[in-house]
Parts: sequence; C-alpha cells; structure tokens
Amino acid sequence: MVNLDRLLADLDAFAAIGGDGQGGVTRLAFTPEDQSARNLFQDKLAAAGLDVRVDAIGNIFGRRRGRDGGLPPLLLGSHLDSVPKGGRFDGTLGVLSALEVIRMLDDARLETHRPVELACFAAEESSRFGSGTLGSKAVVGKLAPEMLDALRDAEGRTLAEALRECGLSPDHLGEVRRRSGEYHAYLELHLEQGAVLEHAGFPVGLVTGIAAPTRFGVTYMGRADHSGATPMGLRRDALVAGAELVLSVRRVVLTHGSPTSVGTVGVLRVQPGAMNVIPGQASLGIDLRDIDSDAKRRIAKKVQAAARRIARKWNLDASIETLTDESPVPLPERIRQISAAACQACGIPFLEIPSGAGHDAMYIAEIAATGMIFVRCREGISHNPAELVEPQDIAAGAAALAETALRLATE
Amino acid sequence: MVNLDRLLADLDAFAAIGGDGQGGVTRLAFTPEDQSARNLFQDKLAAAGLDVRVDAIGNIFGRRRGRDGGLPPLLLGSHLDSVPKGGRFDGTLGVLSALEVIRMLDDARLETHRPVELACFAAEESSRFGSGTLGSKAVVGKLAPEMLDALRDAEGRTLAEALRECGLSPDHLGEVRRRSGEYHAYLELHLEQGAVLEHAGFPVGLVTGIAAPTRFGVTYMGRADHSGATPMGLRRDALVAGAELVLSVRRVVLTHGSPTSVGTVGVLRVQPGAMNVIPGQASLGIDLRDIDSDAKRRIAKKVQAAARRIARKWNLDASIETLTDESPVPLPERIRQISAAACQACGIPFLEIPSGAGHDAMYIAEIAATGMIFVRCREGISHNPAELVEPQDIAAGAAALAETALRLATE
Repeated sequence: MVNLDRLLADLDAFAAIGGDGQGGVTRLAFTPEDQSARNLFQDKLAAAGLDVRVDAIGNIFGRRRGRDGGLPPLLLGSHLDSVPKGGRFDGTLGVLSALEVIRMLDDARLETHRPVELACFAAEESSRFGSGTLGSKAVVGKLAPEMLDALRDAEGRTLAEALRECGLSPDHLGEVRRRSGEYHAYLELHLEQGAVLEHAGFPVGLVTGIAAPTRFGVTYMGRADHSGATPMGLRRDALVAGAELVLSVRRVVLTHGSPTSVGTVGVLRVQPGAMNVIPGQASLGIDLRDIDSDAKRRIAKKVQAAARRIARKWNLDASIETLTDESPVPLPERIRQISAAACQACGIPFLEIPSGAGHDAMYIAEIAATGMIFVRCREGISHNPAELVEPQDIAAGAAALAETALRLATE
Repeated sequence: MVNLDRLLADLDAFAAIGGDGQGGVTRLAFTPEDQSARNLFQDKLAAAGLDVRVDAIGNIFGRRRGRDGGLPPLLLGSHLDSVPKGGRFDGTLGVLSALEVIRMLDDARLETHRPVELACFAAEESSRFGSGTLGSKAVVGKLAPEMLDALRDAEGRTLAEALRECGLSPDHLGEVRRRSGEYHAYLELHLEQGAVLEHAGFPVGLVTGIAAPTRFGVTYMGRADHSGATPMGLRRDALVAGAELVLSVRRVVLTHGSPTSVGTVGVLRVQPGAMNVIPGQASLGIDLRDIDSDAKRRIAKKVQAAARRIARKWNLDASIETLTDESPVPLPERIRQISAAACQACGIPFLEIPSGAGHDAMYIAEIAATGMIFVRCREGISHNPAELVEPQDIAAGAAALAETALRLATE
C-alpha cells in the first residue's frame, strides 16, 4: 500500500526548496536550489538503503537489489528541476512516487525478481539552457559533446561550466550512455499538464505516445506606412496576413488533423508595433503536435502551404523556417496493457491518452520498453505556482505505478 | 518665383542639425538639436527683416509688415522638431517653404495688404512627451496648465522643466493663447506622409480635412495552457480571438466605412509569448481614422461590437478601452478654392485629399480659416531617414503655397 502521508510529506519537503511559500517553486537546472533538491533526494535514496550513483551529467540513480542481480533492472524516474515560477508537482511527483514504490516494497518486505532502479534525470526543463531533457538525452547518446560548450544560460555560462560548478565531470559524458537491453523497462509518472483527464473524469491516464513538436517560424514582410495616411487599398499590412495564418493553423488542424492533432501560434511579434504605423513585419511561432506521424506531416504541409498562399494573397514577402521537426514517440502497447491490468486490479479508473508535452520518457523509450502514467491536474495548469494535483489522485497514480512496477519487476 | 536653390540650401542646412549624415534627423522637442534648429530659424527670420517673437512654450513667430498693420495677418507655418531617426522634410519643409514665401515677396518688392506672419510651432511630434502638437494646442488654449508638470519624457523630465532648460517660461502659458479673428487665415505645407499623390500622379494635394484618430485598446484574456497537452476543444486561446479582431477591423472599415475610412491594428502583444504555451492574453491597439465624423463613429461602434462578439464566441474575458476619440477637422472649402485657383494659375496639377495624419493645422483651424497643401513624397515614406520629396515637387508645393498666400494676403 502506498503511504500517502509519507509521500505528501516528501512533496512538502521538496516544495520548500526554491519555493515561493505559496506552492510555486523555482529550481532551474544546476542552480543552488536544484542542487539542494538533488542532495536531499540522494539522502533519501541512501536512507532507503539504495546504492546511489551520480553520472557525469548529474543524473542520479539508486538501485534496490533483486533476487537475480544479473537481470536488467526496471527503471522508474522523472526529474526535480523546474521552470521559473513553476509548480511543485512537475517532475517531482514522478521521482517521489518512484521512491515511494521502493519504500512500499521495503514495508512489505518484498523481494523482486529484477532489481528496481530509481532515476532523477538532470535538466529536463529547457528554461535555463534553451534545451531540455539533457540528462535523458545523454543516457541514450543523443547529447552531442559539443553541446556542453554550445549551450549557454542567460548569463552566458555554458552547460559544461554549470556542471563543473556542481562538482560534475562533463569530460566523462561518454560514460553516461546506456544501451538497449540494459534496462528491462522504464516507467515515469507525471502530472498530465493538460485538462483531458479532468474533463473526462479520470484520475489516471495511460500514455499512448508522446507527441514531439514540429515548429515553424514564419515572418511576413510588408511596408510600415502611416496608419492614417495610407488608404486601405495601398497597404501591405504584415499583421493582416499574420492574423489569417493564426486562424489557418487552427482550421488546418481541425479539418485535416487527427483527433490528437494540436496546433498553436504561441508567438506573434509585430514591427514596429506602434498605434500609428501599419505593421511592416509580423513574425509568428507555430507549434504543431501529434502522436500520429502521418497526421502531423499532413498538417505541417498544409500549414506551410497556407503560409505561402497568404503571402501571395497580400503581396508580401515571407520567410518560412522549420525550427524543429521531431518524430512522435509511440509507447509500447505491452507496458500499457500491464498498467491497465494493474489499474483494474487496484480499482483505479484510467483513460488512454496521448502526451502533448515532451518528457524524459521520450528518450529512454529508445533503449527500454517505456510506459507513462499521467495523473489528473487541476484545470490542466502546469509550469505555474497554481499547479495542483489532489491527494486522492496522487494516491491513485502512485498505486498504479507501484502495481505496474511490481508486475514488471517480477517478470 | 520660388528660388528653389535657396530653399534646397536651407533644407540642407537644417538636415545637418541632428542629422545622421544620410538624410535622417533626430531633433526631439526641446533637446539641444531642436534648440539649434530653432535658433538657426530665428536667425534666418531676423536676416529676412522680420520682427521675431518667441512665446512661453517656444512657438517662434516672425512678422512681415503689410500695408494695413491693423488687419489680422495671414499665418504660414509648421514645425522643426522630429521623431527619433526621422526624415529631413517632415515639418521643416513647411517652415522653410513659408520662409521662402517671405523672401519671394521681398525679392519681388511686393507689399501685401495684410501682414504675413511665419510660425514654427513647438513640439509637434509626440515622441518625447507622448503627446504632440503641444505648441499649436497652447495657441488655441487646449494645453491645460497641469500638463506642464504631468507630461514627462523617458528620463522623467517634465515638459515645464524642459521648457525652462530652453530659457522659456512655462508660467506664462496663458499668454500664448490667440483668439478667433486674430489671424485672417493659416496655411501649412507638409509632405503627404502617404502614397496617394504618388499613386495618382500628382505633385500637390489640397487637404479636405484632417482625420483625427479614434483609438481602442482591446485585451483578450483566455488561459495560458500547454500547447501540446491541451486539445483544440479545451482551449481558451486569446490570440485566435485577437486574429479574428484584426481581420474584423479591416472588414468593418471596407464594408461600413466611407471611402476615406482607414483602420489599423498596429499593436498586438501576446502573453506569455512562448512557442509551447497557448496565448493567455492578447492586447491589440486599434487606430480608426476618417475625415467623415459619421463614418468614423459608425465603424468605431461596429469594431467595438465585433470585439465583444469575438470575446463571447471564444468564451474569453475582454477589456475594451477607448484611448482617444478626437473629432475630424474639416478644412474650409473657401481656402481650398483659393489654393485650387492658385494651382491652376501656376499650372500645378493637384488632387483634393484627406489628411490621415495629425498636424498643427488641426488646432489652428479652431481660430483661423485654414488650408493645408500636401506635397508628394516617395512611396509615402515618412518618420524615417528614407523620407524623400523630389526637388520639382518642392518647387510645385512652394509655388502653390506662395500663390495662395499672396491671394489671401491681398484680400
């Protein structure tokens, strides 16, 4: 049985580190706050009797022995770093639920067939270095060594420098890598960061796949004329075109996408941006996601075509740049079925849903059969001090994780 | 006859003050650059034998005597201050053309019936104090004394402080005021700041009226959710609503406006403005103009209604604020007819056009029959170092101004 009070007490302890006193936390990767949280986590792993190891990029591992020490272990994890003014559950709920699974096994004096390993992945959030999931990328060999010097924070400090300040050894990045087969499976519990579970009325979601983004930067260039002195027919207004593209993105997704397609214009900047000047330039940042690769490719093509058509219609110059084009990561049916059976055994209602946000699981899935368990969060709010997961949903999620872990560890 | 070489030499001399060496000038109101230009102008007025007077807010007047010194004089003028990185013609072309008219009269040893007075109005541009046409507003009693301390520049200096630094006496603001009947008429020459004359192929425009703006600030408030984790149906995207409003403004103007109606969304700011966050807030700045009061009222009402309807459609909160609601200033037919006859007499092709931009003439029209003469500018570009008026168009404009002035001064 999950000890909910113990898990909630842990959540409170971590919420105090970099906390704003009102539920929010700021623990940017490799800052003193992040280091404090990571140190506390290592203490708790040691207190739980685990063998603790920190790799060159700062990923923390703690292993509980199994009956057969030679078998690939089951891995459970998430992250402890946060965005600026983030919530107390994002990432933290995953690593602490995993720790609670270990304690539960200890409480019940259960010896599993395979070892169970906990992981706290470093720098999952992109807030500090403009690039996220750095720890899990390194584990699967996808963090190029040149990124250690290329990635810089807002103050110009490189990732390598930040690692060294934390006593880590970026020169040994190669040793971080793990290969396919080294882990039996990976499970990550995370709050949904969306409102699908809340709207549908389920405490738990079993993730079908992770929808990596395709992103475009589109800039329309018209002419910045006087707003009063330029008749409507003589204008080359870049924002009118930008507005059409905002609406086109939505229309394309709804008309040509799959049920899991989403499309967002989150960035729109207008130049010069004065009341009395017609916008000479409008720059849009477009984010398309789907767990269905074909559907994402289809809507990406249509959005690009719409962007070009709108430029021609308004006689504007346009630059259309692909910023990111990642492939969605489907998660294996087998792990999901085990989680589903686990939920049914525990009487936990669940929904199968896609993940729109990226997670460490996206990379670990390359070397181990991966499952993700989402828990319902209030109004889908995340990356925000108002982030909230109700205790009963924490209990449901942790129980689903524990039961799935038990089944996988005894395989 | 206009002495074009003399006028061009003057333009060059003033372009050098606060000039960037490439045709642009930066002469913000009451800065040392503006003061240099104003001093040079006073020297030139004195050299032309005029009686020079500077009022408490810095308006410069120079009077050429008429046969009947008791008659209300004809006033000719514009301004010498500029926006940051502005053009060399905006305002300056008007005051120097007016000076050239005086010299022409002297060259021809013409004595006019009425006195002819030149005016250089202070602080026409709003760039420094966020509010423009300060000198002409003061002349018609529309600059409230409390504005002297309320208006501040980016460095926090008040208008009163700036005036004192220039040796002016803001305490005597009341003495600046002139009454209806004190001037026989007012004429202002200005570059068009639009491309209507260029497109229609006319060097000169006779202004039918000045289209003061009605401005709204509209802010839509939705919810800043994760762009990947929030299905299209669960979104409250403030930018989608903002985009609809951008297109509505255009549609309303074209469908319900007059031929002289224009509408612009020059400002659109998105919060938080990140690729992976659905815009929780979108703020728009809307500028509507027309010389036809009824049409402007009609489109303003329709735009407000559209803004509210769009908020309801997308289930967003909206704040709609009227920032400015000025009345258009029709210019009297009588002065325009005299200008038209003057142009015909000189063989200058002209077009009657509205002014979309504001000018000192807008205020002086309250106390004197006012006419404005526009000259064609390249591509309608203004408030920009690339601002250009061709010499032959300068000659045509100055000739139209001179001939109109002569006719009015002999009335």
